Amino acid sequence: MSIADTSCDILFFGALGDLTQRKLLPALYQLERANLLSPETRIIGLARDSEPTESLTRSEANLRRFVAEAEIDSAALQRFLGRLQFLDIDFGVAEDYRALRSLLDQRPGSTRIFYYSTAASIYGMISAHLDAAGCIDEHTRVVLEKPIGHSLESSHEVNAAVAQYYDEAQIYRIDHYLGKETVQNLIALRFANNLFGNQWNQNHISHVEITVAEKVGIEGRWDYFDKYGQLRDMVQNHLLQLLCLVAMDPPSDLSADAIRDEKVKVLKALRPITDDIRTSHLIRGQYSAGQIGGETVPGYLEEPDANTSSNTESFVAIKAEIRNWRWAGVPFYLRTGKRMPEKLSQITIHFRQQPHYIFDPEQRKLAENQLTIKLQPDEGISLQIITKDQGLDKGMQLRAAPLQLSFSQAFEMSRVPDAYERLLLEVIKGNQYLFVRRDEIENAWKWCDQILEHWQDGDKPLPYAAGSWGPEASDAMLAADGRAWHEHD
Amino acid sequence: MSIADTSCDILFFGALGDLTQRKLLPALYQLERANLLSPETRIIGLARDSEPTESLTRSEANLRRFVAEAEIDSAALQRFLGRLQFLDIDFGVAEDYRALRSLLDQRPGSTRIFYYSTAASIYGMISAHLDAAGCIDEHTRVVLEKPIGHSLESSHEVNAAVAQYYDEAQIYRIDHYLGKETVQNLIALRFANNLFGNQWNQNHISHVEITVAEKVGIEGRWDYFDKYGQLRDMVQNHLLQLLCLVAMDPPSDLSADAIRDEKVKVLKALRPITDDIRTSHLIRGQYSAGQIGGETVPGYLEEPDANTSSNTESFVAIKAEIRNWRWAGVPFYLRTGKRMPEKLSQITIHFRQQPHYIFDPEQRKLAENQLTIKLQPDEGISLQIITKDQGLDKGMQLRAAPLQLSFSQAFEMSRVPDAYERLLLEVIKGNQYLFVRRDEIENAWKWCDQILEHWQDGDKPLPYAAGSWGPEASDAMLAADGRAWHEHD
Repeated sequence: MSIADTSCDILFFGALGDLTQRKLLPALYQLERANLLSPETRIIGLARDSEPTESLTRSEANLRRFVAEAEIDSAALQRFLGRLQFLDIDFGVAEDYRALRSLLDQRPGSTRIFYYSTAASIYGMISAHLDAAGCIDEHTRVVLEKPIGHSLESSHEVNAAVAQYYDEAQIYRIDHYLGKETVQNLIALRFANNLFGNQWNQNHISHVEITVAEKVGIEGRWDYFDKYGQLRDMVQNHLLQLLCLVAMDPPSDLSADAIRDEKVKVLKALRPITDDIRTSHLIRGQYSAGQIGGETVPGYLEEPDANTSSNTESFVAIKAEIRNWRWAGVPFYLRTGKRMPEKLSQITIHFRQQPHYIFDPEQRKLAENQLTIKLQPDEGISLQIITKDQGLDKGMQLRAAPLQLSFSQAFEMSRVPDAYERLLLEVIKGNQYLFVRRDEIENAWKWCDQILEHWQDGDKPLPYAAGSWGPEASDAMLAADGRAWHEHD
Repeated sequence: MSIADTSCDILFFGALGDLTQRKLLPALYQLERANLLSPETRIIGLARDSEPTESLTRSEANLRRFVAEAEIDSAALQRFLGRLQFLDIDFGVAEDYRALRSLLDQRPGSTRIFYYSTAASIYGMISAHLDAAGCIDEHTRVVLEKPIGHSLESSHEVNAAVAQYYDEAQIYRIDHYLGKETVQNLIALRFANNLFGNQWNQNHISHVEITVAEKVGIEGRWDYFDKYGQLRDMVQNHLLQLLCLVAMDPPSDLSADAIRDEKVKVLKALRPITDDIRTSHLIRGQYSAGQIGGETVPGYLEEPDANTSSNTESFVAIKAEIRNWRWAGVPFYLRTGKRMPEKLSQITIHFRQQPHYIFDPEQRKLAENQLTIKLQPDEGISLQIITKDQGLDKGMQLRAAPLQLSFSQAFEMSRVPDAYERLLLEVIKGNQYLFVRRDEIENAWKWCDQILEHWQDGDKPLPYAAGSWGPEASDAMLAADGRAWHEHD
């Protein structure tokens, strides 16, 4: 499909909000700069109590702030501002949607993309008003920002409300991790490489680690975060998405539903964290004061606006198990936390060792292949292979050496595109494969809800010093299996 | 075993010859520099009609010439020259060996290493004289330089003559390719990496290429080379050794005989190049005038001292097949030639494609994993994997990208040791695993002899222009199987 076929109106609800200003408009600007927007495409910001000209000025200023200076191309920026307009509209007032309808009617038959970048609690209301004003037709797509609810029940409510007005095929649920090049690359890596594809199962893989570590703390949003906690904020979406992409059976084709069918199968096969395995399979932590990079930082309960009796977790480690033919007996160790020593998102696949070993017995532990897919800070792939240690004084000693591929280096790219650029482009093209289907999100909540239940009873998270890799119990969980978390090659 | 345990006398027959001066003494000097020679070790050069002091002076001058200036450490050089002495001896005169005996008797019970760097035709005679003079005891080792004969029969004669005086466990037959770090690394790569080890068979590998290309021509040794030709000079030893290391079944341990037993099994399983497959499986070439790097070079028959009616081949390509459970149906394409476009020695393992394919049909051919082990010019490993092509404008397009490991870079080595350094060190330590056993060399000759027989009848080699990759028939041989030679990633 050429870009000329994809002219559309892209409308942002919550256009002056942080996400739209910081991420979405800059991402669309990058599509503009790369000539990936059709000349006819309009971008329409919707916001309450806003003066359209002022909103435009503010958006331009923010673009200049959030786009790297070297990436400001004044011709592209002018084109972009030329297609950007704002409308002052109260999302709760039915009459306000009439002006929107008039605007849309200027382009009859054009594809409309409504991007809901507001609280999920009003997605249903917005949809109802759009529908009442006749703004939704079969060419309409809707993008739902996360978080969609905070439990199976609440996400079900949101999804059900939106589903009254849109078919599932029109709905694009965001998990921005799916827009990362490395995440998509997982699909190529698994299904175009027989070397890996052949061994992608319990016969050949001993265990998998998924780490999403943040260096930052709460960043002034204590209230918001405290209601969610790390499990809802990171595990339910990003970590489970990564787990699904690593673990899914090969889809028969690349269609959105073929892929998402396989992901749902994984979620359904996740072993519930029942009471009997709660201590051995689940670690919950909360950071206390500590040091990161030589700087002293406060504990979670000492952050501005903190409720000092909060039990909310800022760290979770889970030994997840998938009860199916491919993964029986292969733990997926998930770990995510705030105030870790560094920003690090990666997946490490540990291949089993050779059945027989003929080298120096003291090096036996070394002889393991690991494939690491790095998402942050530098997207890339690293394969640990075992070679003979080089040098005359070494006999047949082994040494682990990483074969590395950094995307920015390998492809001579000046920049790796932001996830939202990819996601917006796929919405424009009408490809749903990087978006979360309703049964995916609901099955993910279902698994997370039974974990959250354990914590209802006032269960205290374990403390860990800011700047550490989480509570000692997290290391102990792997040590019990004779393993250790892997951070760097 | 510490170096202090390995003091010995190392004696070179043919000590003023090209190999000793250019390669062997420089290699021993490097061991000295790396503190790998015991303080007691003596190095004794044996040469005819030579004045010992003059030989020493000449050897010092050659050391300074053949060792890189930055690697001349004057303290190490002085230590080295301090242990180096020469003896004037006519290898054919029994009485001359008495002086040698006296010299050896100064160190009763010490390990003696006789390095035969002469024509193989006199290995038997030297051995007989050494034996008669009482110079051979159970602590004696003998190193035999290649070529050992030019056929099964002639190599059998040499081996049989030497075997009268030495047990096989005392005999170290040189193939300097076995001393290359990359070649030893093949053992680590295959047997310490389950990722590769698991797939090292006909289920997972479609074919293997072994290329040993030389850029040089005959280099002033036309007469010598013309009697041998490329098959005897390169295939019978180096290429078949590489083939054995790639193809052998995993040895139960790293002992010399466990490894060599497996290598011999491969040689015995090689399909003979019988008359019916002679044209489809065997290409023989001879270079004509051409251009290399912009320079015009003469053809083989126009080289100085050339016999213009020579049918000797300077290029061989063979589709080798191994008739065993591991490799049935997997061709090993061997290729070696002179006056190729560049100096290049490498092994490429082609893994089979995924059984099902879900990406762009036009990219199907791309989706193949290749493991390349580079021996020259830069030793290293390269694994071609398939990734998603990066960049916003690319959908799910594939791209082949090499994961690379250069030994000199990865191990921060200022230099990769020369093969002879490793080999001399292993002789000193008494490890035979990098040396060729008698049944190996004889089985290799057996296979080559039946090829040579085809050429007895005045069979003309195919011409190829210097600076090309050999006769077109070589490309056609692979094209007939739907394949092409692989030179670079």
